[in-house]
Amino acid sequence: MGVNTFIGEGKNMYKLIEELYPICRSITGDGLRKTLAILQQYVPLTIQEVPTGTEVFDWTIPKEWNIRDAWVKDKHGEKIIDFRNHNLHVLNYSAPVHQKVSLDELKEHLYTLPEQPDLIPYRTSYYQEKWAFCTTHRQKIALADEEYEVFIDSALEDGHLTYGELFIPGSSQEEVLISCHICHPSLCNDNLSGIATAIFLAQHLQEQNSYYGYRFVFVPVTIGAIAWLARNEAKVSRIKYGLVISNLGDAGGFTYKKTRKTPSAINDVVLHALKRSGIPYTISDFVPYGYDERQYASPGFNLAVGSLMRSPNGGYPEYHTSADNLSFVRPGYLEESLLLLQEITFMLDHNHVYLNQHMKGEPQLGRRGLYDRMSGDADVQRKQMAVLWILNYSDGQHSLLDIAEKAGMPFSLVKDTADILLKIDLLKLVE
Amino acid sequence: MGVNTFIGEGKNMYKLIEELYPICRSITGDGLRKTLAILQQYVPLTIQEVPTGTEVFDWTIPKEWNIRDAWVKDKHGEKIIDFRNHNLHVLNYSAPVHQKVSLDELKEHLYTLPEQPDLIPYRTSYYQEKWAFCTTHRQKIALADEEYEVFIDSALEDGHLTYGELFIPGSSQEEVLISCHICHPSLCNDNLSGIATAIFLAQHLQEQNSYYGYRFVFVPVTIGAIAWLARNEAKVSRIKYGLVISNLGDAGGFTYKKTRKTPSAINDVVLHALKRSGIPYTISDFVPYGYDERQYASPGFNLAVGSLMRSPNGGYPEYHTSADNLSFVRPGYLEESLLLLQEITFMLDHNHVYLNQHMKGEPQLGRRGLYDRMSGDADVQRKQMAVLWILNYSDGQHSLLDIAEKAGMPFSLVKDTADILLKIDLLKLVE
Amino acid sequence: MGVNTFIGEGKNMYKLIEELYPICRSITGDGLRKTLAILQQYVPLTIQEVPTGTEVFDWTIPKEWNIRDAWVKDKHGEKIIDFRNHNLHVLNYSAPVHQKVSLDELKEHLYTLPEQPDLIPYRTSYYQEKWAFCTTHRQKIALADEEYEVFIDSALEDGHLTYGELFIPGSSQEEVLISCHICHPSLCNDNLSGIATAIFLAQHLQEQNSYYGYRFVFVPVTIGAIAWLARNEAKVSRIKYGLVISNLGDAGGFTYKKTRKTPSAINDVVLHALKRSGIPYTISDFVPYGYDERQYASPGFNLAVGSLMRSPNGGYPEYHTSADNLSFVRPGYLEESLLLLQEITFMLDHNHVYLNQHMKGEPQLGRRGLYDRMSGDADVQRKQMAVLWILNYSDGQHSLLDIAEKAGMPFSLVKDTADILLKIDLLKLVE
Repeated sequence: MGVNTFIGEGKNMYKLIEELYPICRSITGDGLRKTLAILQQYVPLTIQEVPTGTEVFDWTIPKEWNIRDAWVKDKHGEKIIDFRNHNLHVLNYSAPVHQKVSLDELKEHLYTLPEQPDLIPYRTSYYQEKWAFCTTHRQKIALADEEYEVFIDSALEDGHLTYGELFIPGSSQEEVLISCHICHPSLCNDNLSGIATAIFLAQHLQEQNSYYGYRFVFVPVTIGAIAWLARNEAKVSRIKYGLVISNLGDAGGFTYKKTRKTPSAINDVVLHALKRSGIPYTISDFVPYGYDERQYASPGFNLAVGSLMRSPNGGYPEYHTSADNLSFVRPGYLEESLLLLQEITFMLDHNHVYLNQHMKGEPQLGRRGLYDRMSGDADVQRKQMAVLWILNYSDGQHSLLDIAEKAGMPFSLVKDTADILLKIDLLKLVE
Repeated sequence: MGVNTFIGEGKNMYKLIEELYPICRSITGDGLRKTLAILQQYVPLTIQEVPTGTEVFDWTIPKEWNIRDAWVKDKHGEKIIDFRNHNLHVLNYSAPVHQKVSLDELKEHLYTLPEQPDLIPYRTSYYQEKWAFCTTHRQKIALADEEYEVFIDSALEDGHLTYGELFIPGSSQEEVLISCHICHPSLCNDNLSGIATAIFLAQHLQEQNSYYGYRFVFVPVTIGAIAWLARNEAKVSRIKYGLVISNLGDAGGFTYKKTRKTPSAINDVVLHALKRSGIPYTISDFVPYGYDERQYASPGFNLAVGSLMRSPNGGYPEYHTSADNLSFVRPGYLEESLLLLQEITFMLDHNHVYLNQHMKGEPQLGRRGLYDRMSGDADVQRKQMAVLWILNYSDGQHSLLDIAEKAGMPFSLVKDTADILLKIDLLKLVE
Repeated sequence: MGVNTFIGEGKNMYKLIEELYPICRSITGDGLRKTLAILQQYVPLTIQEVPTGTEVFDWTIPKEWNIRDAWVKDKHGEKIIDFRNHNLHVLNYSAPVHQKVSLDELKEHLYTLPEQPDLIPYRTSYYQEKWAFCTTHRQKIALADEEYEVFIDSALEDGHLTYGELFIPGSSQEEVLISCHICHPSLCNDNLSGIATAIFLAQHLQEQNSYYGYRFVFVPVTIGAIAWLARNEAKVSRIKYGLVISNLGDAGGFTYKKTRKTPSAINDVVLHALKRSGIPYTISDFVPYGYDERQYASPGFNLAVGSLMRSPNGGYPEYHTSADNLSFVRPGYLEESLLLLQEITFMLDHNHVYLNQHMKGEPQLGRRGLYDRMSGDADVQRKQMAVLWILNYSDGQHSLLDIAEKAGMPFSLVKDTADILLKIDLLKLVE
């Protein structure tokens, strides 16, 4: 296993994104259900429904939002803004409306991006009830001074918040959390790319015999993560590491935001994988804004959950606009992100601490046939060095990654060498 | 409050220095009493008298020194050196003398500065009894080879060591110590500037409802601080932070010498204030020479007392010479120093640790009217970010300054935001 | 004491190397006995014999190897390779052989250095039985296609592994270990230089009244160190610091490899000595290859043993070739290495922690005659500063070297000043 062993999955990831793109999602509603149903065709997701009014820590599950149609008609009865053309045309969670309005009134309910006049912005109003449309600035300034008919056929009613979950058991009771948000409508990088990467990573991990359990959580942002935490409070302590993933399909280098809780081996693992990937990357300390790592790392939980992206949220002009579309994400970048996550989970899973079984002086390696086991190996000289590093530092204090970093060697070389030493009983697993 | 809210106090500080300048001070004697009596016109100082012979740790209070007159007359009976012209003309703590001497003998009792030939040096001999004059090098080399009459009408007699103290109580039992030395005669930067700054800072703090108690100590250097420590040994553990202040009226940038005991929040506070002041500054680690921070940080006490100056002792040519006079210190610099100290004490006083009252997931801010409380605030966006930082890191481990530093925000913004969160019961004071 | 007080010992060190150079050593055998017998003329070494077959941790003492003669004759019966000309001509630990071989067969048993065609390589085969010669590449390629007679009169028989040990007691029960390998035949820098430096350092330390005990160990590499550890397992915990020394006679700067166990004061001591020596140097972290520091720092012991060399093993073209001869090491470099080790052991021995006997405020120094004791001393001003540093930081937590580093002063100045403070009872030894 390891980066570069996997070819062609990017196309399948992209196909999934194409299928999900037309659906109008929000933090509740049928868009979420339709999305999760499609994901169930790939992996056996469990779907959870949390009723409106349920208290989840400091929050309450809001009314469920659904929308059937929405448009603005001019005086000729022509639809000049039509929700069926683009999900972003309606303020997400907009209240229903049907009335005639003057140009001035209409403008008060119209979001645009004056500096990106050809793009439709993505706007939401989850916790304050109002109605509005979003459109291009170019269209707004060209509007004639006449009467318009506005129509939003949405409903805010008691219902549910919906999320999906998948658990792939490992041999240990401890878990790795992979979380992504699923509430954005018709935005590809943010976050259909995250969803697709999570799904294909889950498929891959289902085929491994993993050490850790891997828990995948597909939630609407903020309220979804909070709901998941509230309903799983007792089990949360099993989560040893986690990643919130998003924005993984664009052409940018990688961005990794470290866990709030430090030190944590997951930060070292991601850094090691990025350093050796050859792809440009940026590392930052934890900051309490972004996606749901905010919730997982809230001080009452303080889970070691980092955030992995390519271009970061807010860090590219297409972000939260209609330009974050099917042209903006590419199969090759999606696959690269998937391979990196496979490498990261591989390293997490194999980064054990061992105990050298002959700690006083070096063991005599020749008589154990160690060199025979390595002969013919192209890496034999580096592995002989790795043997010395592993034996000397397998004192119950250093993980294989710690040793790889000390030795300046790739993790995989150290891991493969440790496997040989395990076979000839020179190492024993500690944790 | 905060730097730049205070205008015009520099002139009053300078006026106090003008009043104190002519007085001949030393480590004991009436010069100290006269000085402290003037300071009592500003703040209600308590004056302490420690009798000659009192043992204070490893030291003994010396005899009290007073001087009435001193001069050198040439063969024509003309006073060529006259104490009444300048206090520095007599070796501080000089023994009395009245006799005729040859030029050679005179020269053995004459201190000058060959490399600064127009300046009178400041010299002392507290613990070794001798007599001497100080004068300009230019005058010394021009002296005729003739007989001179020398006269020093000083007295070394049993008496007292005098110091002043002011305590401004706070709501906590813990204290902040502000200490300055008061024993230098007719030297403005070292240390009438320190005295004036301490007095006006005390006036300012008297008008606050402070969290800490503020203890101001006005002592002769070394022996005075040791005497104060010996007489207050039982109370010293209340001192959480302290500053020795001196050399605060010259045109130089600031110099801060950190506390011996590290880490201490006072170092972070001073650094934060300096960084944001826009004034050049230098930070150094603790060194066991300088002023009375040496005593407060002696290993038996190890108080977290730093040292704040503009140009440091020994670091400017006017230091310990007659050029450290009323032209060398300026009202503007004095006021800048005062404002910085007001900022520092403000930060010390408000740098609390709070506990987020909803630690699991983020609290829902909208329904608490938080955004309404902030609306109209020019800083509303930065405060919304500050809210996230404060809530995430108010876990009982991080002070507001820790949070400000993590967030890269000014302390005042974080403090003002925390005040809002306190009002809506999202925070609770820990310490 | 201190570097630069010792002149002319380099010549004697070089003479010892000249005497040891012709002896054919290996990891067992009479060459070791002859070598240790010569060293006994310098210091009273104890010689230990460990029988073949003895188990030492994971290893077994091998058969003893001795060699009397070896040559290759051409078809004219002329000796074209002759062990009597150079010890390196025979594979160290070679099995005996006597037979006729074709050129092709001979070449399979011939080691050369194609890139250094005029040098004989040093090769060993301790744990795999085979016969071979080593010679210059130039000779190998000129060999005629004819029959050769090969003869190696060696014996591999039950016997002993031989090593030497010297213990110089100190006033403390704790020990400093100095270890060098003695198994290389006719190689001067690696490691007759190490042997000579150890011997002359031992002579020097015998003349001191040391605080620590100094234990010198002269062992064949790897198996010798492991045997020594196995036979001294119970006493090993007394070793507080140690150095493996080798390659100390060449013209290169110094190389110091830190201890595995960190922090350890020996790293600070060596760094301080190197910084102030004026000689270029390189410092590296511990790596688990090199010489016997690998064994002493195996995780079951983890002794604080560093490695001191000039040019490091493998780091110069003469390494492990016939060019590592009597011209390659020079008396001046040997002496420089000895002086550095004298300085290091001096610092280790005097790097105590003291307790200031007047910790509250500074003690009054004048009345104790401190300044009189220093007067006339060229260093009086720096010593007065050192007094303040020592008194402030002699709080039971800081060693003299810690204080020297904080003060930016040479250790010797701080140590000499501490001696004065000890005499006037201002300090007391803690450890």
